[in-house]
Amino acid sequence: MKKASVISIGTEILRGYTLDTNSNYIAKWFEGRGIKLEHITTADDSIDSIVQALKFCSKSDIIVLTGGLGPTKDDLTREAFSKFIGKKLIQDKIILTKIEQIFKRNNWVMSESNISQSYIVEGGEFIDNPNGTAPGIFFNDNNKLFFLLPGPPRENIPMINSSVNTILSNLNMFQKILFNKVYRLYNVGESNVADIFKNFNFEDYEIGYYFDQNGWVEIHISKYFNKNDNFDIITKSLLDKVKEVFDSENIFWTEDINLNEILFSFLDKQKLSISFGESITGGNLSGNLILNAGSSRITNGSIVAYSNDIKRKYLSVSEDSLKRFGAVSEEVAKEMVIGVKKMFNSNISVSVTGIAGPDGGSELKPIGLVYFGFLIEDILFVKKERFIGNRERIIKRVNNYVYCEILKYYHSIRN
Amino acid sequence: MKKASVISIGTEILRGYTLDTNSNYIAKWFEGRGIKLEHITTADDSIDSIVQALKFCSKSDIIVLTGGLGPTKDDLTREAFSKFIGKKLIQDKIILTKIEQIFKRNNWVMSESNISQSYIVEGGEFIDNPNGTAPGIFFNDNNKLFFLLPGPPRENIPMINSSVNTILSNLNMFQKILFNKVYRLYNVGESNVADIFKNFNFEDYEIGYYFDQNGWVEIHISKYFNKNDNFDIITKSLLDKVKEVFDSENIFWTEDINLNEILFSFLDKQKLSISFGESITGGNLSGNLILNAGSSRITNGSIVAYSNDIKRKYLSVSEDSLKRFGAVSEEVAKEMVIGVKKMFNSNISVSVTGIAGPDGGSELKPIGLVYFGFLIEDILFVKKERFIGNRERIIKRVNNYVYCEILKYYHSIRN
Repeated sequence: MKKASVISIGTEILRGYTLDTNSNYIAKWFEGRGIKLEHITTADDSIDSIVQALKFCSKSDIIVLTGGLGPTKDDLTREAFSKFIGKKLIQDKIILTKIEQIFKRNNWVMSESNISQSYIVEGGEFIDNPNGTAPGIFFNDNNKLFFLLPGPPRENIPMINSSVNTILSNLNMFQKILFNKVYRLYNVGESNVADIFKNFNFEDYEIGYYFDQNGWVEIHISKYFNKNDNFDIITKSLLDKVKEVFDSENIFWTEDINLNEILFSFLDKQKLSISFGESITGGNLSGNLILNAGSSRITNGSIVAYSNDIKRKYLSVSEDSLKRFGAVSEEVAKEMVIGVKKMFNSNISVSVTGIAGPDGGSELKPIGLVYFGFLIEDILFVKKERFIGNRERIIKRVNNYVYCEILKYYHSIRN
Repeated sequence: MKKASVISIGTEILRGYTLDTNSNYIAKWFEGRGIKLEHITTADDSIDSIVQALKFCSKSDIIVLTGGLGPTKDDLTREAFSKFIGKKLIQDKIILTKIEQIFKRNNWVMSESNISQSYIVEGGEFIDNPNGTAPGIFFNDNNKLFFLLPGPPRENIPMINSSVNTILSNLNMFQKILFNKVYRLYNVGESNVADIFKNFNFEDYEIGYYFDQNGWVEIHISKYFNKNDNFDIITKSLLDKVKEVFDSENIFWTEDINLNEILFSFLDKQKLSISFGESITGGNLSGNLILNAGSSRITNGSIVAYSNDIKRKYLSVSEDSLKRFGAVSEEVAKEMVIGVKKMFNSNISVSVTGIAGPDGGSELKPIGLVYFGFLIEDILFVKKERFIGNRERIIKRVNNYVYCEILKYYHSIRN
């Protein structure tokens, strides 16, 4: 397996002014082509720092450097690479003319410093940059391949997908293709999933468990195949066995897609409509769903009933229930969802009432306590859950819970 | 100047599954405290790779490792650090009890693998993790300081701001402090701001202009001060002059805080209530505001009126207007906002109706066209705007626009 490294060059990254997204893009890119990324490392705008980074990554077969090819005196990638590889920088007249032409064409004033972009390490080749003045550089040092690319993503990403891709492909560097299946598992912990699969035979597949900030656990099942393998067929029996475990352990799972998109597609396909009566989520249950294009097909509206007054007035929640049980109660959730049905007459009505905090919790009704009312066609049920976290996180979890429950409901009546 | 390095641990970063945002946060954090970040580097989930990264960064005074402290067998940061530093891992019974208590308190099932989190390098100290089960580890190796922190940002960021901050501060590592004032400017371009301030005397402060994806321009005014300087007083006259320029140029500006938080604080302080009638935003205008703790003080509810039917039924929009002008029109925005007032009787009522795309646009009513109705106390006005971008971006911009307009309104009647 070929190995690669990425060196991101720029003091602005080390000072936290710029979030380095290039290396993430390049990591994914190599991953999909069967090349193992060993290092992502950052160097500041000094020759010494870039040389250090090059030495650190020097065991890799492919080394991609991004940044430091611009026209200012901070841009030292060429010089640093020249020092590292022990070859002189020489000027390329053809490139100089090209750069001059770009400036002329755009009516820009060419500064002396732009001339530095026409220098190249002896033995290197320029790589065309269709979206900027700084060309890239490719250098093949006895089958150790170096790519020097400009920093801005809108310049280097097209270069990776065209020139870098062609060069690596011609050198036959892409031998494997990664199969990577991701499932999202809800209402289960990372270590529980690891325990459940402790004795499962994943054959020679690589397995990873990742906890996602948004409240689910991901299981990644991956393996490299040869370029021409039909891995859809090869992997089917293993994936079926994995999904059987999910089902037998009663774990709700989805493909690697956001829940609001999954729910939207499901409702759209089944021609089902949905409306919400939102207290604790304050509009987010509806707001997330309508981010999907075409959402007018699945909802005509929803209500945010934050105060008791609005719960009474528009959702016909009884004064008596509010007094006897409080707004955060099974009874109120139930009355709310009946009110949502009356207001919007959707196939699916949902109500949520709970305590998001940081204030308002009590021993009996702690922060994170939420009651859910579901009225799906003519089936009414209420759920209760306690979520942990800060206000924003609790609200996010409540959203996921609702979307999940609806999908689970239809999943269970399907089976 | 003290030097630091950050090592991000996780194969998922090198494979491009996870974008490493921790190191960016930590970079900014060190920058603000006058500590120079030398390296940001990534190691995969192997002892060898983590040890390599530690060696690479070993000239730094402070080394922060994030990730690899979880409960699974992929989590090898403890073992790798133990190998690098040449000290044994020993179990800490007190921490074990603490972890057991967290699991008990939350009714979670503790798995065998969670026990690994109670191990520590001999001579190290545990760092409290208020948001997760994996404690951090601090190790002082003859004034070379190592911090092992969990990977999830919502766990490690609070730890950096509390324990890591306290430890470094007690060891007197912060000698300079970066003063960095950020203002957000709305409805103005990056180059316009640069032009406006072209001849402004910023003394020896460093100035940056940045365009934010969410639609505002930031101006950063920064300078290093000594720890004991009272830079609130020192910087006041310059900042006052800068704000005078904003005002004289009629630029709407805010501090470096999200608009929904600014609006919430303003409404809360002025004891004003707000309700929305949302078509294009589908609940997000209300949903974003209620992320603020205490939002029951400023809203009793809102309605998502996505279909014409719901606009008619609950907001009393006339059949005639819908037919003659269409749902996306000045007339309908006006009738909607009057309906919102009738439903919720808040001090401020807002309606939004528009075309978010990707379908539904026409030459007369293109994607991104939005009408806004505002009824503030008894002042009614309608605004029209055209936004550019994809569906999600347009909806985000509409949110910001509404929050901005309300603040601008009160700003103008105050003056």
